[in-house]
Parts: sequence; structure tokens; C-alpha cells
Amino acid sequence: HLLEHVQLWDVAVERQVEIVGPDALKLVELITPRDLSKLSVGQGKYAPLCDENGGIINDPIILRLEEDRFWLSIADSDVNLWVKGVSYGRGFNVKVFEPDVSPLAIQGPKSDDLMADVVGEHTRDIRFFWFIDAVIAGTPVKIQRSGWSGQGGFEVYLQDSSKGDDLWDIFWEAGKKYNIRAGTPNLIERIETGLKSYGSDMTIESDPFESGLERYIDLDKQAEYMSREALHRISEIGSQKRLVNLMIEGEPLPGMRSVWPVISNEGSNVGMVTSQAFSPRLNSCIAFAIIESSYAEVGGTVSINAESDIRSAQICDLSWNGRLKK
Amino acid sequence: HLLEHVQLWDVAVERQVEIVGPDALKLVELITPRDLSKLSVGQGKYAPLCDENGGIINDPIILRLEEDRFWLSIADSDVNLWVKGVSYGRGFNVKVFEPDVSPLAIQGPKSDDLMADVVGEHTRDIRFFWFIDAVIAGTPVKIQRSGWSGQGGFEVYLQDSSKGDDLWDIFWEAGKKYNIRAGTPNLIERIETGLKSYGSDMTIESDPFESGLERYIDLDKQAEYMSREALHRISEIGSQKRLVNLMIEGEPLPGMRSVWPVISNEGSNVGMVTSQAFSPRLNSCIAFAIIESSYAEVGGTVSINAESDIRSAQICDLSWNGRLKK
Repeated sequence: HLLEHVQLWDVAVERQVEIVGPDALKLVELITPRDLSKLSVGQGKYAPLCDENGGIINDPIILRLEEDRFWLSIADSDVNLWVKGVSYGRGFNVKVFEPDVSPLAIQGPKSDDLMADVVGEHTRDIRFFWFIDAVIAGTPVKIQRSGWSGQGGFEVYLQDSSKGDDLWDIFWEAGKKYNIRAGTPNLIERIETGLKSYGSDMTIESDPFESGLERYIDLDKQAEYMSREALHRISEIGSQKRLVNLMIEGEPLPGMRSVWPVISNEGSNVGMVTSQAFSPRLNSCIAFAIIESSYAEVGGTVSINAESDIRSAQICDLSWNGRLKK
Repeated sequence: HLLEHVQLWDVAVERQVEIVGPDALKLVELITPRDLSKLSVGQGKYAPLCDENGGIINDPIILRLEEDRFWLSIADSDVNLWVKGVSYGRGFNVKVFEPDVSPLAIQGPKSDDLMADVVGEHTRDIRFFWFIDAVIAGTPVKIQRSGWSGQGGFEVYLQDSSKGDDLWDIFWEAGKKYNIRAGTPNLIERIETGLKSYGSDMTIESDPFESGLERYIDLDKQAEYMSREALHRISEIGSQKRLVNLMIEGEPLPGMRSVWPVISNEGSNVGMVTSQAFSPRLNSCIAFAIIESSYAEVGGTVSINAESDIRSAQICDLSWNGRLKK
């Protein structure tokens, strides 16, 4: 359904961290290795947050609401207190807090039609990760082309938590003609699409190189950032580990209830599976795994130990070695 | 059972934040208004953590493991990233991280007998919030006289999460002669005893005066602490609100599913109930509520609106106006 129609996902649990004040840009630049100097008002960027050791704290979308006002749109984990702490410690002139913002995700190929019906044709022109202000049900929202699937759509940032039911009902009614359904972030689709989940596929023990986030960092950006020294060092010596796509042979496996080791062809433990699902489109179990870099070459094979069910698995690129047509 | 026997509570979810390094004491002092300069190695103290506005971040027990090594033993909320952020921002020479520590609580009046059987008679001499090192099941633990009830007991800090079942089984077997049972923090008992829960009874919007924590802060302590200015200001002008004990008349009420307003005798909204339970010992519903200070005098009456069930309630002191024999 997600691949063909449109879905509403209640993702109000996604918290925003608001940073506002004269030093807001300086603070936001400090906590990410991504260059945000050219981020426009009305634009968002995916940006890993890294601590002074290069460890990933979280991977939010950073929205620039005004010149000196930002939201870090996070999913799991807590970032508010970390940013508050850094800001206090550095004596920055900003306010850091969690505003009353509750996102609603609208995902799937008919999202554009639905949004055009509800808010207007101009929403079709919103570029990826950019956002506009709108009023729905008498309530201010921000509408961003975003969302945690590869099927297109929006996140609607509701700025009054008491209006959540109203917002839902408006899209629900308008979506009936598009065969709308309620949904949630979809484990199968997000692995197919390559969307990593903080806390599972990367943690504070991970760095952006290990996690395949090189394209979202700018090691030589002009602004000060706390992970500069650590990330340059890791960049020079190379990450010991690598997050890879795995295609697993055989019948569908059960959901993961423990860590599944990854084993080399020589029989040594070289990593662990972090997420896994059976993909009907690929007719195969697919997974993310963190493994030693020397075993991470695309096309190589390893084994996984799925609660004593030993399976062979192939290391794939982002297109699952050409088997997933996007 | 908790009032008469002994219980095991799996409170491994209580995380520790370890702070270790030359600046550890300076950092720990910075984040709490409580004077920790005389905290001995082997001693713990309950200490509210307050931000630069005096808002409560959390209320851990702070354990001094070595001269320059501390644990913040927190329950709810996240403190690790906050302390990491402050430490980075100030450039302190410490490491801040979450160690592999999983607490097991042993609570109830027979806790001392059980601990003496398992670890030795010397455990009877552990003073309140002090702790000792021991080895149980071949695994290092710290045993602290502590726990989230007023019935006495210990928390055992297991330092190897793979040994949780072994630790449980050892106390379980030894506890059979004391009629041991599995339990959890008990809503009724903790309200009777006056134990506040962070996230419900106090939040970052609360200050230590409002929350009745004056005896745990030292406004004029020598060390630098970030809430000094804010707390002195609040101390001078007085808190607008106050966390109070309420005894509610009438039949047992259902569990709270929404915020219950507190209403003055003149009919105005003067606060909200934050926790509530029916106490068999007091034969009454009892509650914590945050209300305007001018209505907080012990002996006064207010009403509460328990989902349209309006009840009269009396403001009580910590002994429930003499009705709870401890």
C-alpha cells in the first residue's frame, strides 16, 4: 500500500529541539560536521550530530526557520539536553527547548495529490527537505517534503498539540478518494530504501564514515565544529567497521530478538546484524550489519547466525546489486 | 508484602552516568546546588540537578566511587548527554559515559536479614546511601543502602549485565525463607512515603523550592554551580507554586488518564494533581499536586476534578497530618 497509494503516519513522538537567538547558527554548526552556512530560511538538511570523539549523537533534519532560529527534527534518542549542555558550557546567547510541535507524516506516491487537494497546488513545488508555512484547521503548520520512506511525501509540523485529531481527520477525509490508510514507518521499505535507524544501525559508538554518511559531512567547512579533529583523524586512518547491506539466502527469518553475529568464511566473528526483514519485492531477507571493513566489499559473502540458523549472505550496494528497481 | 517482608525489584532500567577524570568533582559540583565537597568515597547523596534557570534536570543519587570518579544514579529521563554537553562546553578533563551497570533493588523490612545471609553480617552496618564493594556469583557489585521505598533495603549495582539472571536467582533462593516476592516500585507506598517521581511530580519547569527539596540544596556552597544565580533569585522572591500532599475524600478513584485540575474554594484553577493512588493504610485516596503557593498551607482544603468527579481534598504534611504511623 505504501508503494502504491498514500498513508498517514502519526509520528508525533518525533520531537523538535528549537534553538533560537543570536548564537543559534554558531551552535548548530558546532554540533554537526555538515556545512550549514548556506542553509536557507525555509530549507532543511539531513545532518549527523557528532560529539568530540566523532561519535554520532543523532541524525536529525535541521530546519532553518529564521536567520537565527532552527529546529533539530529528531526521531529516537534525546538531543535537547545535550544541546542545552553544550550551549550552557560555551556561554552561547541562545534559548534551547522543546517546542509544542507534533509531526504528522504523509507518505506514498499519492501524497502530492492529497496535499494539493488539502492545502493547494503550490505544495507540489516544495523541494526536497524544504518547507512552507500553512494554516490547516485554523492552526499554523509547517509542511516539509520529507518523511522516513523512499516513496515520497511530507511531514506536517503541527504547532498546537491539542489539534492533532483535527489535523488527522482533515487528511483522512480528503484521502479517501486516494485509498488512504493509517500506517507507520515500515521496516521492510526503510531497509530496502537504505534508511538507517539511530539506536539500531548507528549509535554513539559509530562514526559517520562507518555509517556511510560521508556525503552529509564537510570535514573542511569553515565554521567551528566539535568533531573536526576526531573526524579528520578517522578519515586518515579509515574506519575499522562499516555498515553494509546484506541479502540473506533462504526462507523468511523471524524478527530479531537478540544480536545476530556475522561470521566470515574463515569462521571468525566479524560483526553483527542491526536490522532485518523479509522483502517481498526482493523475495529475500535483507539486513543492515556493522562488520569489519576488510569484509565489507560489495559482492563478498559472509554468514549470519540467526539464533542458530546459519545463513549465507551477500554484501550488496544501495540498489541491492541492481535487483531493486526504484 | 512490601511493608512486612522482602521483595526483589528488577530496576536495571535505572541508568548510571559515570564521570571520571581530574575535573570530575568540579563538574559534579557545577550541575547540582547541593554541596558535595564533603562527599566521601563510598558515600552517596541525593542531589537535585538544576540548569542555569534553576529548573530540575533530574534528581539522582550521586555516588563517589573514587576521589575523581562518580556515578549519577538516575531513574527516568536522560542525563548522560546533558553532562557530556556541559563537560564539552566547559572543556573539562573528564570522561562521561554510561557504564555497564544494572541495579537490582532489594526492598522491605527483611532486606537486612537477606543481605546478611547472602553477603555477610557486615552489610548490616552499611549506612544510608553509603555503599560497599562485594562479589556475588563471581561478579563485582556495589551494595548501597538505598531504594525507592520507605521500607528499607538495598540497591545492588551489578557491573556485568550478562549476570543479571544469576544475581536474581541467588537472592531469590536465599530469600525463600523470608517469603520473598518479585515486586516493582509501588505507587501507593511511594506516595505515602513522599517519594517524588521526576517527569510527573517535578520537571524542568520545577525548581527545588517548589518541589520541597530545600534540604538537599546549599545555596551558599563554595564550589561553582550553574543554578546559583537563578536559585538565589527564586529564594528571595519565593516560588509561585508548591508541590503538596493531598488527602482526597470519598471512594477510591481510578488511575489518572489525564491531568486532574485542582480548584480553589473560590472556584479558580490553582494547579494540577501529578500522582494519585488509593492507600489502604490511610483508607483514602492520596496524591501529590502542584498548586499555587498561596493555597498550599497544611490543613487547607481544595477540590480536585477527577475526570468530572469533583472531590474535596485536604492539604497534608509529610505524615499525612499525623495519620500515617511510620
